[in-house]
Amino acid sequence: MNRRNMLRATGSVLALFGAGLAPQVQAQDRSANFLAKAAASKPSLTETVQAPKGLITPVADAGHPLYWQIEAAGTVADLESRVLKKGDSLIIDFGGHRTGFLSFDLIGVGPNVDAPARMRFVFGELISDVAEPFHPYTGWLSQSWLPEEIVTIDYLPQPVRLPRRYAFRFVKVEIIDTSSSFGVTFKNVKAHAVTSATGELPSLPAGMPDDLKQMDVVAAATLRDCMQTVFEDGPRRDQRLWTGDLRLQALTSYVSYRNDDLVKRCLYLLAAFPREDGLLPGDVYELPKPARAGDFPYDYAVFFAVTLADYVKATGDVATGGDLWPTALRQLEILYGLVKDDVFVIPEKVWVFIDWHDTLDRAAAMQAIYIYGLKRVVELARALGLTAEVAAYGARIAAMEKATLAKFYDRKAGVFVSGPNRQVSLASQAWMTIAGVGGKSLQTKALRAALKGADTIRPRTPYLNHYVVEALFLAGCDAEAVAMMRAYWGGMLKAGADTFWEAYSPDNPRIAPYNDFHVNSFCHAWSCTPSYLLRQYGQQIV
Amino acid sequence: MNRRNMLRATGSVLALFGAGLAPQVQAQDRSANFLAKAAASKPSLTETVQAPKGLITPVADAGHPLYWQIEAAGTVADLESRVLKKGDSLIIDFGGHRTGFLSFDLIGVGPNVDAPARMRFVFGELISDVAEPFHPYTGWLSQSWLPEEIVTIDYLPQPVRLPRRYAFRFVKVEIIDTSSSFGVTFKNVKAHAVTSATGELPSLPAGMPDDLKQMDVVAAATLRDCMQTVFEDGPRRDQRLWTGDLRLQALTSYVSYRNDDLVKRCLYLLAAFPREDGLLPGDVYELPKPARAGDFPYDYAVFFAVTLADYVKATGDVATGGDLWPTALRQLEILYGLVKDDVFVIPEKVWVFIDWHDTLDRAAAMQAIYIYGLKRVVELARALGLTAEVAAYGARIAAMEKATLAKFYDRKAGVFVSGPNRQVSLASQAWMTIAGVGGKSLQTKALRAALKGADTIRPRTPYLNHYVVEALFLAGCDAEAVAMMRAYWGGMLKAGADTFWEAYSPDNPRIAPYNDFHVNSFCHAWSCTPSYLLRQYGQQIV
Repeated sequence: MNRRNMLRATGSVLALFGAGLAPQVQAQDRSANFLAKAAASKPSLTETVQAPKGLITPVADAGHPLYWQIEAAGTVADLESRVLKKGDSLIIDFGGHRTGFLSFDLIGVGPNVDAPARMRFVFGELISDVAEPFHPYTGWLSQSWLPEEIVTIDYLPQPVRLPRRYAFRFVKVEIIDTSSSFGVTFKNVKAHAVTSATGELPSLPAGMPDDLKQMDVVAAATLRDCMQTVFEDGPRRDQRLWTGDLRLQALTSYVSYRNDDLVKRCLYLLAAFPREDGLLPGDVYELPKPARAGDFPYDYAVFFAVTLADYVKATGDVATGGDLWPTALRQLEILYGLVKDDVFVIPEKVWVFIDWHDTLDRAAAMQAIYIYGLKRVVELARALGLTAEVAAYGARIAAMEKATLAKFYDRKAGVFVSGPNRQVSLASQAWMTIAGVGGKSLQTKALRAALKGADTIRPRTPYLNHYVVEALFLAGCDAEAVAMMRAYWGGMLKAGADTFWEAYSPDNPRIAPYNDFHVNSFCHAWSCTPSYLLRQYGQQIV
Repeated sequence: MNRRNMLRATGSVLALFGAGLAPQVQAQDRSANFLAKAAASKPSLTETVQAPKGLITPVADAGHPLYWQIEAAGTVADLESRVLKKGDSLIIDFGGHRTGFLSFDLIGVGPNVDAPARMRFVFGELISDVAEPFHPYTGWLSQSWLPEEIVTIDYLPQPVRLPRRYAFRFVKVEIIDTSSSFGVTFKNVKAHAVTSATGELPSLPAGMPDDLKQMDVVAAATLRDCMQTVFEDGPRRDQRLWTGDLRLQALTSYVSYRNDDLVKRCLYLLAAFPREDGLLPGDVYELPKPARAGDFPYDYAVFFAVTLADYVKATGDVATGGDLWPTALRQLEILYGLVKDDVFVIPEKVWVFIDWHDTLDRAAAMQAIYIYGLKRVVELARALGLTAEVAAYGARIAAMEKATLAKFYDRKAGVFVSGPNRQVSLASQAWMTIAGVGGKSLQTKALRAALKGADTIRPRTPYLNHYVVEALFLAGCDAEAVAMMRAYWGGMLKAGADTFWEAYSPDNPRIAPYNDFHVNSFCHAWSCTPSYLLRQYGQQIV
């Protein structure tokens, strides 16, 4: 890092004398500066107050992907006329997903309102959340994430606003007890939906089929409900800023709600918490105060630089680009230490995410992601007038592309392979395509060959599904891209998604990566990209 | 009611024209005026912050009245060094009873504090509360009164103050879940005790035995923890202003904490909610806004007048006395409608409390209480210069006393009897004594005879125990009075009471009037009177 960049990186007068300070002090100063800039970009949330649509009841249906149909069970007037006593319950339907708060007036009805009212609330993103008991819980994530709450209201009548934020379409209320002398009635039940998304969703290209229009609405709702004071991965669970999710949210934001400042804030938050060697974490906590989580997925370090390049390209904000440039460049430089003979070698115990898939060989995908990172950093350097600092990257890219074709490309089969068992995966083909390795014709053939292969390792998460679809569009496989979108996000739509999920498989809609379906997140950031894909590549399919 | 009194009662300029208004409007105006005066006397609460004494563990002991011994299990330093994970629990001991709030700093300890912490709190007045499961609950009062709470804290570290008020010495914490990556540690656990009692407890007469001194400390703590913005019956449960409790709390307050304004406030609150005929309810709710509860115990209507007489006698506040005089007088006048041939006849379906006792015949006690009320109202009229308004009461008292001796006194047995079965109860003897019927010698003999009688109906509540003890002191049966105090309140002391209970029986310390011991209140206003009795009659026993 040269002196000019250090100055830009810290943005502080102290940096003028930085050469005389210990490196640790410089790093602390830089982090404080980044956090201050993140704080300055903190958005205010808009709160939209919404009345319920009515009451519903779940009806078992073994043929439904979620095993439940939703049946209307009353109007808001019916809700407000019910007097609930011990053991009574009802399910309120807000008609769509929201991230936010619940308020209501709780009225005591009876000759003597002589005790508190104790109730259990369950917040459902899906019908299964309110149709099925959460307990016994079998997952390995903390059961504290289960969206349930026991609330005691001491004095009635009382306006109540539950203090915690929830992600929900449905609210189930179970009365634990009132007393023999009174019951309770809920009046003025309201959802207070919060988001930092503003404005209207821009139109899709004309001629878009209705099912894809609907997919766009649900994808945009997913982004909206994850857009809080950071881009959260999911408002139901984790509620955390992850580089991999951020990149997809930011891409989608640029073509939809355009909250560019929120992207900037998130980049600064991530940049404020480098490891001692400068590597950025894959995730940070926003609350109670910004802090690094313990995860360092190496592919996500590349995505920090990629997300900054996307940001400068989308916004033209070269000041922020320059400020974070040394951090971005540092990610590529640290990872270059793992490149031997032009091949990225993933060390044992290092986490490279790519997808949730135990048997996926990640070598080819990581090679491609690193090359993609180099290319995007060169593009960023051009935008910032800093090409001198990446003068060596042209040769590095060329050497690594050459090594990639020699080591990862199977000429006979016409596919990229990975690992000692020459595993064929859509991950490898997709990332080679996105990285621009081998030319479009080779990529198209590789993707199509892998799509056909019976043993091909296929994506499991919406996250990797996105990159496969994007690669298919880039390779001109438009029909395959749209078919994959319909099978994947379209499958969730058919299951009744109001927002897209953290985990889904067309073969197993109730896939439970944490061993309990109820702890899945059903509004998850990395699932929001149809709104990006349909705008970015929509002209190819209408 | 004459014009002068109406003016005093409403205290409003409107009253000058009251003769032209409908009676309902006048009543509303008077109630609003009383509520405004109650609001003006609302005390501010003092908050005392207290650290725990340490950790304890309950040890089963079939020989203990509560079946449990309390064993020390660690210091505050031990508490603060424990890292609690799913399934862990501990019991914090504050060393004494308080009404108030709980605060703590909740720290996440581990490599990744990646989830909320969900915990269950149980607040124990007694060791049995935290040693035994509350469920399955078998009581017939609302289980919403069980002092338990499930709390989810989203972001750690976090200072937490639980929003609801509890009555507790012990706090049991059970960790429902953190996550596999972290546990929680409690730091700076504090009780925030609230009360409207102020100042130091005045000394007892010199020479008081140690056990009675200890009884006084616990009785005064009982009053203190029930003294909030009203005199509550119990801070654990009901938390309600009752005339019967108020009278005993006020008597005790005059010789201890002397919050006279709180008595005034409570009198106005009760007076603000007359039935259409003017009868006052036995209880009112303070929150969410003052409101009448549904109960009209007829003996408590008399006690409104008695409590006002006590108040004017203790404070000299004739302005308040005059203001509430018409209301007090109205209670005696309404009840006089039930007096036939100088005997108070309790109608079917009318509630006369006296004691919690299904088979207690209340006729004699109610006759005595009504006579006592007449006498106290005459005394009050004298203090207010309003004797003309009770000119008829002297003759009424004489006639009723004469009828009492004729109808309720068994000359042969030397006891007062009640009902068709000529039931002998301590309630009847005590109230005849307090009412001054028959002379001291007759009363003393009646009390002693009833005490000896094998079939005598004995008091069940601290409330009636108080009046029996007071009667014994008034009749000069000092040894019997002290023996009864030692058996009753002393029994609770031996069981480990830090405050005196709602219900206790020397024969059955775990008496459960609502069919579940855990829903009893263990700091209950009507149990606070040893601090009054030992000061009022202490010279007789030292």
